[in-house]
Parts: sequence; C-alpha cells; structure tokens
Amino acid sequence: MLGVPVTNLRLRGVIAPMITPMCPDETVDEDSARRLTRVLLSAGVDGLWLLGTSGEFAALDAGARASLVEAVCDEVAGRVPVVVNVSQPGTALTIRTGRDAVRAGADGVAATPPFYHPHSPAEIDRHYRTTKDALGDVPLFAYHIPQNVQPPLDAASIVALAADGVLQGMKDSQPNLQWFRLVADRTREATGPDPFTMLMGTRTLVDVAADVGAHGVVPAMANLVPAACRRAFFGESGTVREDVKTISGCEALTAHVRATSGTATAICAIKAVLCHWGVIASDRVGLPLVAPAADQLEALGTALAALTPLTDPEGSA
Amino acid sequence: MLGVPVTNLRLRGVIAPMITPMCPDETVDEDSARRLTRVLLSAGVDGLWLLGTSGEFAALDAGARASLVEAVCDEVAGRVPVVVNVSQPGTALTIRTGRDAVRAGADGVAATPPFYHPHSPAEIDRHYRTTKDALGDVPLFAYHIPQNVQPPLDAASIVALAADGVLQGMKDSQPNLQWFRLVADRTREATGPDPFTMLMGTRTLVDVAADVGAHGVVPAMANLVPAACRRAFFGESGTVREDVKTISGCEALTAHVRATSGTATAICAIKAVLCHWGVIASDRVGLPLVAPAADQLEALGTALAALTPLTDPEGSA
Amino acid sequence: MLGVPVTNLRLRGVIAPMITPMCPDETVDEDSARRLTRVLLSAGVDGLWLLGTSGEFAALDAGARASLVEAVCDEVAGRVPVVVNVSQPGTALTIRTGRDAVRAGADGVAATPPFYHPHSPAEIDRHYRTTKDALGDVPLFAYHIPQNVQPPLDAASIVALAADGVLQGMKDSQPNLQWFRLVADRTREATGPDPFTMLMGTRTLVDVAADVGAHGVVPAMANLVPAACRRAFFGESGTVREDVKTISGCEALTAHVRATSGTATAICAIKAVLCHWGVIASDRVGLPLVAPAADQLEALGTALAALTPLTDPEGSA
Amino acid sequence: MLGVPVTNLRLRGVIAPMITPMCPDETVDEDSARRLTRVLLSAGVDGLWLLGTSGEFAALDAGARASLVEAVCDEVAGRVPVVVNVSQPGTALTIRTGRDAVRAGADGVAATPPFYHPHSPAEIDRHYRTTKDALGDVPLFAYHIPQNVQPPLDAASIVALAADGVLQGMKDSQPNLQWFRLVADRTREATGPDPFTMLMGTRTLVDVAADVGAHGVVPAMANLVPAACRRAFFGESGTVREDVKTISGCEALTAHVRATSGTATAICAIKAVLCHWGVIASDRVGLPLVAPAADQLEALGTALAALTPLTDPEGSA
Repeated sequence: MLGVPVTNLRLRGVIAPMITPMCPDETVDEDSARRLTRVLLSAGVDGLWLLGTSGEFAALDAGARASLVEAVCDEVAGRVPVVVNVSQPGTALTIRTGRDAVRAGADGVAATPPFYHPHSPAEIDRHYRTTKDALGDVPLFAYHIPQNVQPPLDAASIVALAADGVLQGMKDSQPNLQWFRLVADRTREATGPDPFTMLMGTRTLVDVAADVGAHGVVPAMANLVPAACRRAFFGESGTVREDVKTISGCEALTAHVRATSGTATAICAIKAVLCHWGVIASDRVGLPLVAPAADQLEALGTALAALTPLTDPEGSA
Repeated sequence: MLGVPVTNLRLRGVIAPMITPMCPDETVDEDSARRLTRVLLSAGVDGLWLLGTSGEFAALDAGARASLVEAVCDEVAGRVPVVVNVSQPGTALTIRTGRDAVRAGADGVAATPPFYHPHSPAEIDRHYRTTKDALGDVPLFAYHIPQNVQPPLDAASIVALAADGVLQGMKDSQPNLQWFRLVADRTREATGPDPFTMLMGTRTLVDVAADVGAHGVVPAMANLVPAACRRAFFGESGTVREDVKTISGCEALTAHVRATSGTATAICAIKAVLCHWGVIASDRVGLPLVAPAADQLEALGTALAALTPLTDPEGSA
Repeated sequence: MLGVPVTNLRLRGVIAPMITPMCPDETVDEDSARRLTRVLLSAGVDGLWLLGTSGEFAALDAGARASLVEAVCDEVAGRVPVVVNVSQPGTALTIRTGRDAVRAGADGVAATPPFYHPHSPAEIDRHYRTTKDALGDVPLFAYHIPQNVQPPLDAASIVALAADGVLQGMKDSQPNLQWFRLVADRTREATGPDPFTMLMGTRTLVDVAADVGAHGVVPAMANLVPAACRRAFFGESGTVREDVKTISGCEALTAHVRATSGTATAICAIKAVLCHWGVIASDRVGLPLVAPAADQLEALGTALAALTPLTDPEGSA
Repeated sequence: MLGVPVTNLRLRGVIAPMITPMCPDETVDEDSARRLTRVLLSAGVDGLWLLGTSGEFAALDAGARASLVEAVCDEVAGRVPVVVNVSQPGTALTIRTGRDAVRAGADGVAATPPFYHPHSPAEIDRHYRTTKDALGDVPLFAYHIPQNVQPPLDAASIVALAADGVLQGMKDSQPNLQWFRLVADRTREATGPDPFTMLMGTRTLVDVAADVGAHGVVPAMANLVPAACRRAFFGESGTVREDVKTISGCEALTAHVRATSGTATAICAIKAVLCHWGVIASDRVGLPLVAPAADQLEALGTALAALTPLTDPEGSA
C-alpha cells in the first residue's frame, strides 16, 4: 500500500493517535471516523495510530475494531501509514487481533505486553517473538505504557528484540525522557542503517522529542491541534514557543475536564471538543467513561475559544 | 439451579478457583475439565470459581469460555454454586461476557474493574452499577486483585455498593488482612441479616480467614490440596497445623517452579502437577506462559512426593 | 538488667510501641513518659518498643532520644524488656545511635535499612552485618516498614541474616500476613531451638498474629487499649471477639481523626486521647504533625466514650 | 556574600551537586573538598549544590556537614552561589540544620519534605511554611526526589508556596519532563517578574532542560564533565550533540559500576573516577555504600579513557 516494503515502514513526524468516534449506542460511527481522518490528513499529520489507549480499544470487540480500521484505511488510501494497536491480555488473542488488523488494512501493528498478568521479562520476550513469528512481514511495534500495563518494559529486552528484527520500533507513552533517550541511544547502536523507530507518546513534550532521539510523536493532543504538533515537532523557526503553548493549553483544558468530571482520562474532553466543532457526531465514550456535562464544557470558556476549530476539507462538517 | 434464589446465593467454605485445562493447541479440554470438576467435588469443595486469574480467562475468547462453563456446570449439576469471572477491559464487554456466563450456567458472576485504564472511583462505581442493571438478578461479586488491576478498590465504595444491593459480595486476592477485616466489618454494618459475602483469595492464609471475617476462601492451592484447604478453613480440631503446612508446602512448590522457570505465576506449576497425576491430559498453559520443563518438575522431588495425588472418583484417572 | 543474657532476649506477647510524650516546645516530657510507662506496665504489657514510628524518632535529636530512653528504662527497672529503634539514614549514624541507646539502658535495638536511599539488597545486608559487628552482644532486630522505607526487605536476606546470628528477630509493620508467615516458617527452619523472634506491628490483626507465626505483637493501639491487645493476642477464651472489636474501634477512631484533620498518621489521635485522659500532659506532636483541634476530638463522641480511660497506678494521673 | 540580596538569589546554568570527599574513616576530607571546588569553579560551573543526595548528606552528622560547608564556602569566596541541602526527617531538625548551613556560609538552602513518614499535603505545606518562617531571609528551595522521598510533591502545592513567597524555587530530580514543564508554566504565571527558579536534577537531559522551562540544571555528572554540562545546557552551537554524548557516556559508566558492584547509586562510581584522577584523595563512601573494587574500575577501560581528567587549577592535583 505504501511505496516502501512494509517491513521498512518509516514513521516520521506526527502520528495522530485517533480517537474512535462512537454512535450513541457505543457502536463505531464510521462516517465520523472518515470525517476525522480527512480532517487530520488535511492538517498534515504524517500517520495514524488507531485503537490505541485514546482510541478506546479496550471498550471494543473484534467487529467494531475491524469496521473502524477498514473505514479509516479506505479513507486514507495509502497516503500515510496506519498503525493499529492490537493489544490483548494474552498472546493468542493478540495474534488473532493482529491478523484482523492486517486484513482490515493496517500497515503496521503495535502491542503492549499481555495486559492482565504482570508478566516476567521472559514471558514478555516470548510474547513479542511469538507474535512476530505468527504475523510475518507486518512491522511490529512495542507499545510501552506502564501507567496502564505493568511491569515496565526494560531497556535491555527492547534492545535485544530490536537487534533480532522482532520489533521495528516502539512507542513510549510515559514521560520519562531519560529512559527514552537511553533506549534510543542503545537501539541505534544495536541496529543498522535502517534504525529502530522511536515514537514518543507523551502529550506536551512534542518539541523536545527529536532532541532525545524520537523519530516521531503520537500525542493525544494531535486530535485537536495537529498542525501545532507538527510545527512543534519539526521545530519550524519562530513558532515553536507559541505552538507549545497551544498544546499545553489543550492539555490544561483536558485536565480541567478530568478534575471536574471525575474521569481518569483525557478522551472524554477530546471527544467533547471534536463534537462541539462538528467533526464527530456524538461525544459518546465507552462505559464506564461518560461524556462531560454541558456546563463542564461551557466552563472551558476562553480556553476552548482559543483553539481554532478543525473543519472537514470536504466541507460537510 | 440451586435451591436458594440466585439473588441469595450463599458462598461458604472453599470455593475452588479452578484452572482451565487446555489441549496442546490452547483450546479448552472439556474432558479434563469434567474430570477435574469431579475430583474437586469429590474432595468436598463448597463451590467453584471459574475463569479467574488462575483460570486463565485472559487467554481465552468468548467461545472457549462458554465451552468451559457449560462443561463444568453440566458436570456439577447444581450440587455446588458456580461463580464465573467475567472481567473485561470495558463495561459493555463485561456485560456481554456476563450474559454469556449466565447462559452457560453460572450461578453468579464476578468482575474486576475494567482492567486496562486506571479508572477513577466514579468510573468504577458506574461500572458495577451499570453491569448490575444489565445482568439483573444474577448475583454480582467484586473481584479485587490490585496486583493485576490498578487502582485498588476503596473500602467506602464497596460499602456503598453493598448497601445498595449492587454487589452481593467480593473476593479479595491481596494478602492485606487488615484491609479485609475493615471491609468485612463495615459491610456487615451496612447490610442486613443476609450479609455481604467476603471471600479471601490469598493462597496460604486459609486458616485465619474466618477470624478476619471471611465466609469463604478461594485459594489457588485448592486445585491441588482441596481437602486440606477445607479442614484448615473450617478449623477442624487437631489437623489445622498439619493442613496449613500442606498448603504452605504447595505454595513453596509453585514458588520453586516460578523461580526456576522465569514465569510470573503459579498456574504453570499447578497444571504440571495435575497433569503429572493424570487429572488433566496436558500441562499446556496459554501463551506467553509455558509449562515447566521436565527437569524443573523432577527437581520438586520430595516436595511433590509429599502430596497425595488427586484421583477421579469415577476411576478413569 | 534482665535475668536472661541479652543475646537471648525473649520478646513474647504485647510489646507496646510507646508514643513519646512531648512538652509544648517539642522537648521530651520525662514525667509524662514515666507515667505512661507505669500505666502500660500496670496494664500488663510484656515489653516496650521505644522511639519507633509511633514514638516519633524521626523528629528527635540524640539528646532527646537519650533522655526518653533513660527515663523509661529507669521506670521499668528491668521488669520487662525495652527495645529501642535506632534507625538512621546511614550505617555509621545507626551505629552511633545504637550505642547511645545501649548506654541509656536498652535491652535490644531495632533498625530499618538506612532510610533515605533506596538501597540494594547487598547494601542492606552490609548495613545489618556492620551494625551487628559494631554493637556486639546487644540483640539486633530488623524493622520492616516498607510504607516508609523502600525497598521492602526480601525474605531470603532475612533468613540468611537470621541463620548467621546477625539478627535476633524482626518486626514487620506491613499488613501482608502471607509474607509474614513465609518468613516465620523459613526462619524457624534456619535457626535452632532458640528461634528467630517474629513480631507483628500491624494495628488490628493482634488476634491472628500467633496463628501465622508471631511470638509477639507491637500494635500502636497498645498505647490506648493494652489489656485488650494482650487478651486478643493470647486468645483468652470468650473475650477475643470483644477485644478485637475494641481494638478495631480504636483504629476507627484514629482513622476518623486522620480523615478530618489532614494528618497522615495515627500518632496525633493517640496522643490527644492520652492527654484527654490525663496520662500525658500535652498532646504536642513533632512538626509537621499537629494535634487535632478540640472539635475533632469532641466529634469522636461515643467512640471515645466507649474506651476505658487508662490511669496511673500511682494515682497521680 | 553575593552582590545580590540573598532573597533574590539567582541560580542559572549548571549548579554542580558536589560529592562530599571523605577520609578513609568516613570523616569529611576538607582538602579534597577544596580541591574539587577549585576544579569545578575552574571548569566554569555557575553554582554549587552541597550535601544533596550525591553529597551523601544522609551519612553525615551536624559537625561533618558544617565542616564541609565552611571549607567549600571559604574556597568559593562568593564567586558563585552555594545552596546547601538541609533535609531531615522532621521539621525542627530541618530548621536546626538550615541554621547551621547559613552560619557556615550557605547562600540558600534546599529541603525535601520530612523524609521518613509519607506525609499528607497539609503536613508538607506546613513543613515549608514553618521552615521559611524560622529561617527568614535565606532563600528556600523545595527538593523533589520521589524516588527517595514519598509521596511526590503536587504541582498545586508548589504553586501556592511559590505565590506566597515561601519557596524561591525548586529542584526536580525525577525524569518526568511533562510534570516539570507544567510546574514551570504554572509558577511563572503565579509569580512576578522575578520568577520562581526551576532547576532540573536529571542526569542526562541537560540539553533539553531550558526548553521545558529550567533556569538551571543540577546533574550529578557535573562532578565529572562540568564543561560538557555547561555547553549542553546553554546550547552552544555545534557541540551539543557531542556534549550530550559525553554526558550519556558518563551515565553509562556509572550504570556499569552499579550493575557490577551491587550498589544502588552512582555516587560510588563518581568518587572512584575522581580519586583515579587525583582530584580527591580517597574513594571512600558512607556505609552501607562501598567503593567499587579495582577490577570494576579497570573494566571501564575505554569508557573511562574517553573522559578528559579534571585537574586542579592550582596544580597540586
């Protein structure tokens, strides 16, 4: 689908971790998903990351996942790479989910360690090797998010999996940039001229990501301010300070919704804003998450007004 | 199925958290499951807990789960209550899994909080209330295992859910007996004459469970030494010290396998011993777990020899 | 000072972890310390544990510590053993504090690992061996309280230190009874006929402590209800249930003060009650702790009224 | 001592967290301390941070601390600001230690929360306000190092203490740059034209510190490669990449010593290298730390050879 062989999938720049639009009955809203895809591509994002933590994979069954991936990949039509998170609590389920994703059009797949048992390093190593063996050529990325999946990955394991060609890269969603730089340095030494891909998932550190070795970033805020994320990541002269302020403002906005609504995640706020802008039809989130109340969104006032609404390039938003 | 209305399901004594026998291809081995069911019932267990952490629910899809529950419930034929763990990473999936379990014969269902996001207390409360509303009369139990599912449940939330009739009881798999006693005391005050059921899941504290307010225990070691667990729990005079030694010996045996095989769980050792005894046909565990090597089992030597093998009362083991 | 050689110091029963009475200027109030000592001995406690976590060692300098130990040991006059916590953030300071304690009359000393750096197992092992070498015959106890001192002690290290005669026992202040039983079992195997002393520091599990291998308990609540703690620990027939209720009521009372006053510890409530009863002259605690306000104590109402005030056997309270 | 009033102490650039040279008997080696001071000042460091975590304050008593501070301040003679860490497990001890530090010549003092009890936010707030009231004009810095002192500081508390003039700044030793940026942004809004000072203590992120709002850095590696730290922090054109490589190489070197010697800290390796270079006379560290064995240092081989030895500008090294 891409010009390069999938085994050399290059992820560079802002890979947007797209939220998954839902209908009021919690099924996938494919129309909104297509519209959001157009909006993000029109803003210049360099790739899409589907069904990640912000994409609410944990609330969706196999059918729902497939419909989302198919709709988005069809809309993307090969213009940018699409990576699909296929994490499951066991290896066999991960492999099955990975095959579904490839069948539905994914250019690459990502997986956390199995996310129920706190597995040993040997088990996590076996998980990635078994998954890679089963999935074959499709590029496989480790997804590191120890806030949600214990225990943390250890640097030595990642370096070994990189050197053996099991992993093509990793996304790190923790804010520990010292660890990120360490893994970036060591995987660079361990792999050849086609380096291990380091993606940083942290929300507000987009501008310093490249300095510590990131090839790309996967910030949830790219759902709301994708262009600012790109300028901040690529360090376009003169605007970085302003773009970082925009991204931090977004983060503050979602933090406000979390603090006032008792939710533990930024997803609810992101969907509420996208729905307010008309990009997606409903602010529905998967239970036990619920959308913020109207007055919580109103209370955002100037913070929300400071953002430029995203609009559908095809004009139908 | 039971003589008592399901909403008054009484769990007392040793509720065995049955491992899930698998065929070499990781499908459910129904014959072995029926045999293990007979073995445990013949040993006097007071109930079964299916598809819990030791039951490897995290490795199994909906079809596999249903086949296990159906086979076991058919074999049990109402003689003891069967509770099925229906935990999922989201509420809607939990409800669907709960309905499947009831359809397959479960007398009660248990659920952790959704186990991917570290949810807020408000979200966890909503999870249980929504699940209860959807499942109706079937008794719902909270499943507390903060080693695997973060954050820990807080006592005040459980008391509120108990007082409102949402939860009929809980299983606590952490070894903090001070917290267990606190919840037992407070739920006893908050509910009426038909008390909130407190089940302790810790492996080796079977004998002191009743002292801190437990109505029953759900120890993984009941898969290997069910009779000792019962005597220790009910405090039958004269044998408690010996029975506790038997249970602790079992735990030491599984700890040895963990330490020497790089696995993070006792499941592999339990299955290996049951397979060695001929109770189940294969020691297969769900990937990324793997069965201990032959020499690891041999190294158990006298520890293993000290256990009385379980045998099928129908003689086919 | 005791009839037995100090190297065979036997701690059995309730070892009260005495709070340290302070004057309003945060110096040690020796008169109150002597009165509290008489009160506790008159209630039958089997030993005293000075300058522990509840004894606010962390707020006191060397002079203040010495004055407390001297006053209490003089008052005790050898009737029960006195153990002094000499924990410091480094080994040399621990040794110096240990010598001060012995000079002031301690029958035994206890120490956490150095409590600032999260030390490696090798460093913790070296800490105990070096301390034992320097202090000589005085019995040395490990003090395990991972809520305050990271990382947790590991069972294998303790067993080795017990087998080598470095440690004479340990106090475990965490509520994990499975771990406690494991260490009790393994140290019993590793040492001879004069066993390694296992003391449980948890607040409300006094009655089940002996069942999991404890020789004694060191519950903060022994400052308020020492007789109930003794009856609960020794399992005097017929009263255990009532005594446990008394202890749990005390714990609930201190939890209420914590919740309403923003303090992180039970010490403030314990001192306030002892001051209310006239056992100690001031409810002063070491900053940043502060005594509960008058209305917080009044709000305890019936909970406080349910306790029998402790009184000085010499009548001056 | 400085030209600016101490209440406006400006810390900018590389503030070296000096290790504390010790004699073989664990007393402070003042000659080596003076020599290291000259070496660091000659390398251009912009300030000194004494008796921090790398300065082994946890192993030293009041006398030893005073002798170190006096010797270093005398040698510095006001050329750069000297901040002294005065952390203690209680507030009164912190204040006393703070007064000692000022008397010995400190231009500013830093303190963690009291580091034994896991204090509540209200207690931590009281700690800083009480300490500031007692110490008066001397600038007070919060020292955030949740790896060693639990619980973590929360951003809202720091902002309030900054706005009220209690804290003049903070040093953050955790690697979470997202949190660092948040606190930098919010304290900048809360304080006037003379901003709250943000210092980053992380070892290898010197070059990106200014981008996330740091006015200065306090990296342990400044003991070994101070000039590289300065160039990396100030972003001098053309050399940043090389300087970061040097700093990361230092970090790798200390990680190697940690891994092979069973120590939990980088201090042992730093002292060993400084002793190898002749800057300090002994590699002694405070027990339970011990110096690396000779063969562990030899094993560093090329990593050590790649560093330019520091030398005393007065030639006596």
